[in-house]
Amino acid sequence: MEPVWLYDTTLRDGTQGEDINFTAEEKIRIAMRLDDIGIHYIEGGWPGSNPRDDAFFDLASRVKFKKARLVAFGSTRRAGVRPSADANLNALVKANTPAVAMFGKTWDLHVEQVMDNTLAENLAMIRESVEYVKSQGREVLYDAEHFFDGYKNNREYAEKTIAAALDGGADSIVLCDTNGGSLPTEITAIVTDIRAFIQKHRKKNGGQPVTLGIHTHNDSNLAVANTITAVDCGATVVQGTVNGYGERCGNADLTSIIPVLQLKMNRPCLTDENLARLRELSRYVSEAANMTPVSNRPFVGESAFAHKGGIHVSAIMKCPVAYEHMSPELVGNRRRVLVSDLAGKSNVAYKAKELGIEIEGNGTDTAALVSEVKKMENQGYQFDAAEGSFEIWLKKKLGQYEPAFELLSFLVTIRKEKDRQCYAEATIKLLVDGQERFTAAEGDGPVGALDNALRRALHKFYPEECDNMRLVDFKVRVIDGREGTAARVKVFIESRDKKEIWRTIGVSEDIIEASWQALADSFQYRLNKAREEQNHS
Amino acid sequence: MEPVWLYDTTLRDGTQGEDINFTAEEKIRIAMRLDDIGIHYIEGGWPGSNPRDDAFFDLASRVKFKKARLVAFGSTRRAGVRPSADANLNALVKANTPAVAMFGKTWDLHVEQVMDNTLAENLAMIRESVEYVKSQGREVLYDAEHFFDGYKNNREYAEKTIAAALDGGADSIVLCDTNGGSLPTEITAIVTDIRAFIQKHRKKNGGQPVTLGIHTHNDSNLAVANTITAVDCGATVVQGTVNGYGERCGNADLTSIIPVLQLKMNRPCLTDENLARLRELSRYVSEAANMTPVSNRPFVGESAFAHKGGIHVSAIMKCPVAYEHMSPELVGNRRRVLVSDLAGKSNVAYKAKELGIEIEGNGTDTAALVSEVKKMENQGYQFDAAEGSFEIWLKKKLGQYEPAFELLSFLVTIRKEKDRQCYAEATIKLLVDGQERFTAAEGDGPVGALDNALRRALHKFYPEECDNMRLVDFKVRVIDGREGTAARVKVFIESRDKKEIWRTIGVSEDIIEASWQALADSFQYRLNKAREEQNHS
Repeated sequence: MEPVWLYDTTLRDGTQGEDINFTAEEKIRIAMRLDDIGIHYIEGGWPGSNPRDDAFFDLASRVKFKKARLVAFGSTRRAGVRPSADANLNALVKANTPAVAMFGKTWDLHVEQVMDNTLAENLAMIRESVEYVKSQGREVLYDAEHFFDGYKNNREYAEKTIAAALDGGADSIVLCDTNGGSLPTEITAIVTDIRAFIQKHRKKNGGQPVTLGIHTHNDSNLAVANTITAVDCGATVVQGTVNGYGERCGNADLTSIIPVLQLKMNRPCLTDENLARLRELSRYVSEAANMTPVSNRPFVGESAFAHKGGIHVSAIMKCPVAYEHMSPELVGNRRRVLVSDLAGKSNVAYKAKELGIEIEGNGTDTAALVSEVKKMENQGYQFDAAEGSFEIWLKKKLGQYEPAFELLSFLVTIRKEKDRQCYAEATIKLLVDGQERFTAAEGDGPVGALDNALRRALHKFYPEECDNMRLVDFKVRVIDGREGTAARVKVFIESRDKKEIWRTIGVSEDIIEASWQALADSFQYRLNKAREEQNHS
Repeated sequence: MEPVWLYDTTLRDGTQGEDINFTAEEKIRIAMRLDDIGIHYIEGGWPGSNPRDDAFFDLASRVKFKKARLVAFGSTRRAGVRPSADANLNALVKANTPAVAMFGKTWDLHVEQVMDNTLAENLAMIRESVEYVKSQGREVLYDAEHFFDGYKNNREYAEKTIAAALDGGADSIVLCDTNGGSLPTEITAIVTDIRAFIQKHRKKNGGQPVTLGIHTHNDSNLAVANTITAVDCGATVVQGTVNGYGERCGNADLTSIIPVLQLKMNRPCLTDENLARLRELSRYVSEAANMTPVSNRPFVGESAFAHKGGIHVSAIMKCPVAYEHMSPELVGNRRRVLVSDLAGKSNVAYKAKELGIEIEGNGTDTAALVSEVKKMENQGYQFDAAEGSFEIWLKKKLGQYEPAFELLSFLVTIRKEKDRQCYAEATIKLLVDGQERFTAAEGDGPVGALDNALRRALHKFYPEECDNMRLVDFKVRVIDGREGTAARVKVFIESRDKKEIWRTIGVSEDIIEASWQALADSFQYRLNKAREEQNHS
């Protein structure tokens, strides 16, 4: 079986996505992660199009990649301009990468109506541009833009554009379903045909071996299917992005493609060890992109192996393969059991066990617990997404909870004058180990001021924990939009220290009340862990 | 071409999704929407499993559906129990629906290891249960659970379970890829085989016509592909959920399947008029489920036809078909042009024109504008998602902005004592039409208090606008997680009145400052529109 080359365009096509923006430094960090996990080609950007991309290639020239080949992306020369005088091509060469990806027009409609060009000149542009960049010592992958639509509308011309790229010496022909509207049956027919066309052209004209690549978009929810279909038909260069980021409905999602190819189609792409780092890569890129991780993303999503219905959970505990199409650990994921209002007793028992809390057989009314969970969830508490708060709540219910501190009162004040920034301060009064602590602090906003005042009050007793933990994300969601500012809000806080990440939740009509709940739970959770560790040592 | 029957299980399988919960009344409303748009089967729930589902079927018995057949879902009888004495089956019948969907075990692993049953008794359970429910006058669709895995592991037994359902008189055999791990090539082989098996069995044993159905899950990111592949192989009952909601990675997404079948595969499912209401259905269900609409969802997502890169936009304005695989209006969607830092002059010009603002040819430095947009976006302003704020910003830049009011100062106080709820109040001083207004208000939290005080201050001058507009959603996102509460936050506010929905944004390290920006913009936007309307009349 021929090897598959993974080609990542997160840093270029991925950035066309609506909310995606990377600084040049972030791009370098992501590129190094991609190289580290074993991606074969990393398309870094479009030199000359954007100051950030130029900065990226400049920084990248000082990075020693382990195995990955960095790729500069750009267009063919402009009509009527000699290759060596063309700004596009020179920018591509100047980026000084091992490989260059060059896109050209395949569809006569684009050539004539959009670009106001002639069919013949377009072919010359393709052939000469590929030839020129090859002559500068680069590997050249030719991206046949809008290939499938071009082929469907004027097959002969589409084939001519491929021939032009081959004549220029392209190392790879990448067929792009740029509009994302093709079906797997069309992919099968067209890729099969073009593969034969390329073989015939090479037999006739000579030239070095050429790989076939595929680049799909998800406008019809078929990007992954189209990609693997193309691989079945002989494509060996697979283009996509991490988490499927990209314009409109996104590019083909590499975090789906890689496991499907490797685990279901016997087309290995990464080492097993690196495959198990896939989820980590997915999270890393989503954080760098400041995008909420999509929890139901196949393979790597938080919920990809999250079992909800009571029936499934008892069955899974008996026999995982009966309910899971693969083992989560292979991609670095894990099985989760959701506590929810479809939960049977087995869900809650499983969850408690996971948290190290004994509930079976010591007089606990598990049915009553389940019923209470359902009530809380009805009010908006999403324990699925806030296991820190769930643990506290469960311990309270079981009479096993010992708070690290008790709130006596707090006061938060926010002032604003005309155009000046808001000014926030908080005072807080706590009871810790029987002692009263009364502290004051300023902060970036009310939650920040509370966080600082709380930290100040607790630092005397838990200096290390307070120094190391920090709030890294908070989300506020209005529960029922129809009620405006009177609606209940839920606040999620994600906190982390050197070892752990934990999430807590608060629910109230008042955002500060909800934030306080989540914040207090976050500290109670962490400080209680510290006390447990002390007790055990 | 045989017609395709659309079978929606949003209200049953969809509710297995991590964050999805519907009340019985919400389920009824969704069911009526589904019926209205032309869905053929509506699987409403599992009677007897959950009080909400029982309530649903009770309410549903009083609804007159136009065309849709309501379906009650449940399991085969229990081992060793007579059908007429079985609680499951009796609950199914008692739901009094035209149709019943019954799931049974296909995979010998499940029968023997998970259910501790015998292979023979399982077949009897299937046959007798189908027979019994048929005898009660119901249409019966038999859901062959884990069919593809069962077939791959023990084909003969899997076929026997189908034969048992046929012998019981099933009207439809639905093949379920319950674990979501199958590939399109496997679907092709297996569905083709089973179709032939069914035809052969009927030829031999007689019986009424039987339809073939397909029910896929998205664990491999192939649910839609697998579904349409099955249709190509003869399946005519297509199961899925709106927005692909469902357990783990979700069910097959009907909002993708329907346009693919109807617009690309010549398998009409809905009238053209109803197809154009698909986006509306998608939004309705996401709001009912309290789920953020997924903006990059194929066909119906806000970004499905959102073009970002400068190049694409100028091309699209010339020739839409060159860049879009279909016309957005066919599914009730629309084209969007994003203002972003990849924006060329054409994006900003397009956007301004859309907002009715003239910028070309009156001395405006469009290039400088574009450069400023990029700067703002770098700081976190996401104008793509906050067009209300963009309009204000653009007008300010062009010297065309006249604020409806000016902030002089505000003060917000939040108090909490022990376990009591937080108490928030705000005072605000504004300048409106040269007059000073100084008001105070309480509220559900600081933003609510500010909103109330602001409303109070403005009501004297804009009574109708203040009465009709309300804040319906706000989102807070930390921009750089590495800085904890010192990080910049962006606050999005969505406001609406009877006619319009608009979104505004604020960015600051301080959540109240950011909320104030978004809130003030929201009022400025609406009140300025009111003044413009007055000026024109």
